[in-house]
Amino acid sequence: MPDDLATTVLERCDALAAFSEEDGRLTRRFATDALRMAGDAVEGWMREAGMTTRRDAIGNVIGRMEGGDGGTLLMGSHLDTVRDAGRYDGPLGVLIAIACAERLRGTLPYALEIYGFADEEGVRYGTAYLGSSVVAGRFDPALLQRRDADGIAIAEAIGVEAAALAAAARAPADLRGYVEVHIEQGPLLEQEDVPVGIVDAIAGQTRAAVTFTGAAGHAGTVPMDLRHDALTAAAEWILAVEARARAKEGLVATVGEARVEPGAGNVIPGRVRLSLDVRHADDAAREHAVERLRGRADDVASSRDLALEWDVLQETPAVQCAPPLRDALAAAVRDGGHRVVHLTSGAGHDAAIMASLTPAAMLFVRCAGGISHHPSESVDHADVAAAIAVVMRFLEAHRG
Amino acid sequence: MPDDLATTVLERCDALAAFSEEDGRLTRRFATDALRMAGDAVEGWMREAGMTTRRDAIGNVIGRMEGGDGGTLLMGSHLDTVRDAGRYDGPLGVLIAIACAERLRGTLPYALEIYGFADEEGVRYGTAYLGSSVVAGRFDPALLQRRDADGIAIAEAIGVEAAALAAAARAPADLRGYVEVHIEQGPLLEQEDVPVGIVDAIAGQTRAAVTFTGAAGHAGTVPMDLRHDALTAAAEWILAVEARARAKEGLVATVGEARVEPGAGNVIPGRVRLSLDVRHADDAAREHAVERLRGRADDVASSRDLALEWDVLQETPAVQCAPPLRDALAAAVRDGGHRVVHLTSGAGHDAAIMASLTPAAMLFVRCAGGISHHPSESVDHADVAAAIAVVMRFLEAHRG
Repeated sequence: MPDDLATTVLERCDALAAFSEEDGRLTRRFATDALRMAGDAVEGWMREAGMTTRRDAIGNVIGRMEGGDGGTLLMGSHLDTVRDAGRYDGPLGVLIAIACAERLRGTLPYALEIYGFADEEGVRYGTAYLGSSVVAGRFDPALLQRRDADGIAIAEAIGVEAAALAAAARAPADLRGYVEVHIEQGPLLEQEDVPVGIVDAIAGQTRAAVTFTGAAGHAGTVPMDLRHDALTAAAEWILAVEARARAKEGLVATVGEARVEPGAGNVIPGRVRLSLDVRHADDAAREHAVERLRGRADDVASSRDLALEWDVLQETPAVQCAPPLRDALAAAVRDGGHRVVHLTSGAGHDAAIMASLTPAAMLFVRCAGGISHHPSESVDHADVAAAIAVVMRFLEAHRG
Repeated sequence: MPDDLATTVLERCDALAAFSEEDGRLTRRFATDALRMAGDAVEGWMREAGMTTRRDAIGNVIGRMEGGDGGTLLMGSHLDTVRDAGRYDGPLGVLIAIACAERLRGTLPYALEIYGFADEEGVRYGTAYLGSSVVAGRFDPALLQRRDADGIAIAEAIGVEAAALAAAARAPADLRGYVEVHIEQGPLLEQEDVPVGIVDAIAGQTRAAVTFTGAAGHAGTVPMDLRHDALTAAAEWILAVEARARAKEGLVATVGEARVEPGAGNVIPGRVRLSLDVRHADDAAREHAVERLRGRADDVASSRDLALEWDVLQETPAVQCAPPLRDALAAAVRDGGHRVVHLTSGAGHDAAIMASLTPAAMLFVRCAGGISHHPSESVDHADVAAAIAVVMRFLEAHRG
């Protein structure tokens, strides 16, 4: 039975991959037509499963299955993607939850609500978790004025006011918790040879925008000693980021984006805007690293007579998963005949935000080569079936 | 009289600046509507000056003033710009030539043809001098398949075949030479306190596209020691480029463009494409530097287990200006009461390409702070008047 459900889930992952902003590759950012169309498809499957559906003010898709008066358990994951994405990061968790809900229809003594979050990756606005932060009541209304690369503010992109977003926050009182299924996006479950794993903690994360501003000039006529090249400054700092992360166990730091202005082969770069992403399971270690990297950026800028802007876009503390939910998931894994593997998530997840609202836990599904954020992202049918079986056992056993 | 002409020339520079691809800043690349509209305006002024006009297959604007049977002298410069450009780099030389032609109408014993070249900066296709290389018969038909960032091939952008481009080449037989007026784009004439200068040589230039390809991956889950980050590799090489140019007198080397793929804050860069621009007055010094930089790129790529692509887009040897034309320009400068300052051009110019067709020379006009490729690019009215007076004396005295 989980086999058939796994087939359905994987077919739906394929179907959702057709909703993209770009021809020939999957890119589905927050508040785009592609995301809205993917949400329509998900709502359709939710209704087929016997759920009532709605959208909230930020654009999250929500399906609700009634069930006794035992409060409400939340499940879900996100429907947005990175650029040139795979098809499982996010949607897999939403679709597994829907498949389990359909199968368990009418049998649970509590209501089940499934969220398809509108933004987790943060590609469009450089700040992630827009979807779950609204639900958790942690959305900062100042973000409404943030603009994307085309100058479109979040407020324009979603067409709502701060008050509507505040109203979309859930009250914790009747909630039983939040459970998220997600691909691992790392190599550990493959190494351990198990289909699924129990997440103990989610690493904290700092994201910043770092801008070096020097002076543009003609590449042929300005001598080297008179230059204030923003890209060579950026290069010096990018290497410092790499060196620091290499020097600290468990630390990862990434510059994933670099925008060079004016950006022509025969013009000395006047301005370079970089992204910074730093993660560690220990918040103090992460904060110390970020502080050191900021100092290093100051040093690079001042030694080259450039200006530095340092804009922290997001700081997410490390999150411990809720022991009762975590242990119940582990029991369901064990009952399925699998060895229980515990791991820390290096990737951020909506569960880290939802944990501020209600107890949260996560189940990871093995993915090939640990690869994610890439079209070659892949999961095994048998592993998806195992995850579905675990979730169904968990939901049936869950009495809170 | 040169005063009035200078006013006209500067007004026309202002008028041309309105033809831009972008609101609020001047960007006018090869084969865009903005360039075509600028060409229409220039053709109008040519006709007012009594010239017949035409476009050739690559899109150069050409005005011809008949004059006896003493052959044809070519003048001109380019009408395309870099991104966020100033208004004098290129157009000033075209408009000074038109103003002088109008004033000297019917008095010259030779024909005068003025070219407004369609591409000198090379911003759109990463390869410069498309306009003058067609005229000089040096256009490589393989370039017709080169694509811009939007995937549009040159052949599509201009809508002509290789044969038409070959037919647009000039035969050298009846040509008397090519003279180009251009802003200096460097600080020397300001330091020397003279309005104009005589170019003795134009530095040679190598342009290349350098691509590092590693592996994209999740910024949170791939440990530092398993990464093949294309951007950290690029950063290491960018610093090597800077160090090499600093170490060699007269060498300038610039990475002006960096495209990061996939280009998201939470994804390890899988691929980075960089531009390289290397210049020196001595060809052997330039070639040696390029060779060393290529070796360095190989080292960086192999030490990080990345792939390297190295694509030379253009190699322009250093060009000596033709002594007879150069000396005649110098005499006209001296006759105007100015001290004669000789200099080497660090910037490439259409004159370097035209020199392969016919003897070529250049007159530089002082520009404020040596700044170019920037909206703050500026010339003095008095300097423009001085340049016009020099060109008129030169044209009147020029008997070949």
